[in-house]
Amino acid sequence: MSTQLSDTDLEDILNGACLYGAGGGGPYTLGQSLVADIKAGKKPVRLATPAEMTGTDSCCVSGGVGSPSAAAKGFDLHTARTAFDQLASTWGRPFTHVMPIELGAANTILPMTVAAVEGIPILDAAGAYRAVPQITQTAFALHGLPVGGVVLANATQQVAFTAGSAADTDATMRAIISGGTFTDDAGLALWAMDAAAAQRGSLTGTTESARRLGAALRTALQAGQDPVAAVAASLQGRVLIKGTVADEQQQMGEGTDTGLLVIKDEAGREVSVVSQNENLVAWSADSTRPAALAPDLIVTMTVDGQPFSNADLQLADGKQVAVIVAPTAAAMREPAMIAAFLPVIRSAGYYGAWFGV
Amino acid sequence: MSTQLSDTDLEDILNGACLYGAGGGGPYTLGQSLVADIKAGKKPVRLATPAEMTGTDSCCVSGGVGSPSAAAKGFDLHTARTAFDQLASTWGRPFTHVMPIELGAANTILPMTVAAVEGIPILDAAGAYRAVPQITQTAFALHGLPVGGVVLANATQQVAFTAGSAADTDATMRAIISGGTFTDDAGLALWAMDAAAAQRGSLTGTTESARRLGAALRTALQAGQDPVAAVAASLQGRVLIKGTVADEQQQMGEGTDTGLLVIKDEAGREVSVVSQNENLVAWSADSTRPAALAPDLIVTMTVDGQPFSNADLQLADGKQVAVIVAPTAAAMREPAMIAAFLPVIRSAGYYGAWFGV
Repeated sequence: MSTQLSDTDLEDILNGACLYGAGGGGPYTLGQSLVADIKAGKKPVRLATPAEMTGTDSCCVSGGVGSPSAAAKGFDLHTARTAFDQLASTWGRPFTHVMPIELGAANTILPMTVAAVEGIPILDAAGAYRAVPQITQTAFALHGLPVGGVVLANATQQVAFTAGSAADTDATMRAIISGGTFTDDAGLALWAMDAAAAQRGSLTGTTESARRLGAALRTALQAGQDPVAAVAASLQGRVLIKGTVADEQQQMGEGTDTGLLVIKDEAGREVSVVSQNENLVAWSADSTRPAALAPDLIVTMTVDGQPFSNADLQLADGKQVAVIVAPTAAAMREPAMIAAFLPVIRSAGYYGAWFGV
Repeated sequence: MSTQLSDTDLEDILNGACLYGAGGGGPYTLGQSLVADIKAGKKPVRLATPAEMTGTDSCCVSGGVGSPSAAAKGFDLHTARTAFDQLASTWGRPFTHVMPIELGAANTILPMTVAAVEGIPILDAAGAYRAVPQITQTAFALHGLPVGGVVLANATQQVAFTAGSAADTDATMRAIISGGTFTDDAGLALWAMDAAAAQRGSLTGTTESARRLGAALRTALQAGQDPVAAVAASLQGRVLIKGTVADEQQQMGEGTDTGLLVIKDEAGREVSVVSQNENLVAWSADSTRPAALAPDLIVTMTVDGQPFSNADLQLADGKQVAVIVAPTAAAMREPAMIAAFLPVIRSAGYYGAWFGV
């Protein structure tokens, strides 16, 4: 029942996932390398749904973790598979499926490279309908799925550990990758789960949503229409500003990038986007409350149609860029999810009440 | 024409200046030591106005600079005088007056110790009607008075330098005091000026305002009235919350403390105060815009009447505390002053439009 993804699908998914990544989810350029790697391998990527999984099926979550800026400097495309294989060896039976942790240029495509090489389908599901700062902001965590064993891998080493709760696992993971032996990023496998857990604890349709969004962007560009308007319409959001980058700050540390992106338009209007990997708070300088708060989407792209993440702001060099704000999926606005996001929104400087776009 | 300050005046000024300090301006406990030192010296402090200065008169600005937390650990009370004397030696003629840089528990009293020992009046004027994060937020800077020579002093060394603009002087000052030879704080003398400059470039009535506010607090306590209500009324402000400290974070670095103070009341309401030495943004967790932005006043005291700064949160240990927000003086709301505050408000995480309490 699984669907085979075409090259166009892969490119649409890359673009859509980068937009949904809302600044995070890994660099667009890394996603491009991963798509190229899949095409070069000539092994198909098949997309399945959690509903198709049966009693003996199982999967784990695969991706990359850490500082997107570090990943942009070079990320071994095979480390996700190394981590997947090592986690599978402790699971007792082969994983029949693999699942992305989130929507994002790298983290949506990375498990596809695993799926292609392992010859198993990737699930059209994920832990979140956007990129998330910590694994505590995933549906897996909110549904109480046990994280279980975790494997971190780079080209030269693997670290396997268990740490109990999602919060402790996230903190341990960041500590390991920023402890000196890793380079602030790593390939990742965790949350081994059976079919029932995958069906109960994941958000479905994420990859297909990315594909549709990417297709909307491609269709607009092919028709000579405004790609920013097309993306905003597809997300049911609005364009907050179109302008140039007036300031950008990115600080790498503890396996996370914290950043500020300031866009100014010709009328002197100014929008500031505060991020921790992902974009967390968007401010208009002429308003006394934010324009958008995570988990709602704060999306960046160039006005000529190139999505970019905070780890590859060079894609915006010398170009007009747009900031789009849009409501996130309903499942991402549940009170428990908002509560999981509040601490990171606060660490981005907003200590007020949450409200939706 | 100068007025001699009584012991009660000194104590009222200490309390009032700490409240106006809005979290900054140096530790209350340091202010107490300074008042005790003045009383022990039995040399009177005389208060004069800039208007009383005549053609040959001159003054400089005296105080302490740096991390209030560092100052709370021990601050040599004589370093301000050392700095004053060294700056005077380059001025060509003796300073006839001395002026505080800002309102605050330590920085309003510190120059009084210099005035008492030197036998000259202290001016009832300052650079700001509150404590300020940088010297760029003083009236001296906004009126374009040249900063001139700067002397930094501690018990063992003095550094004299000139750096041109107020912004460059501030940055140089912070770099020197956090460079390793100072302990993140220092006695300070700068902005040597003649009578005309003092009359044009300072805000007058600051010390008398602190005295009146401190007297209102004392009178309320003596009459068994609510001291928080008395302070709020005297400042024409409002009580934002009364509760207990739910969280406090203070981070010292680069000659500045950055901090967060979270107060929770019995109804579960929560107020977060973000500071950089001084309190810059107050948030209610149930509102989507801040309750107050600097330079408006975000004032902390215990409900039994003890003012405290961010450098002596131990004064609030185990006590109910109040956060009061109040409009700052009109001179502090001029567009140039708001513009000078905006960068520090932004570094505190608020990237929206300024608005008054």
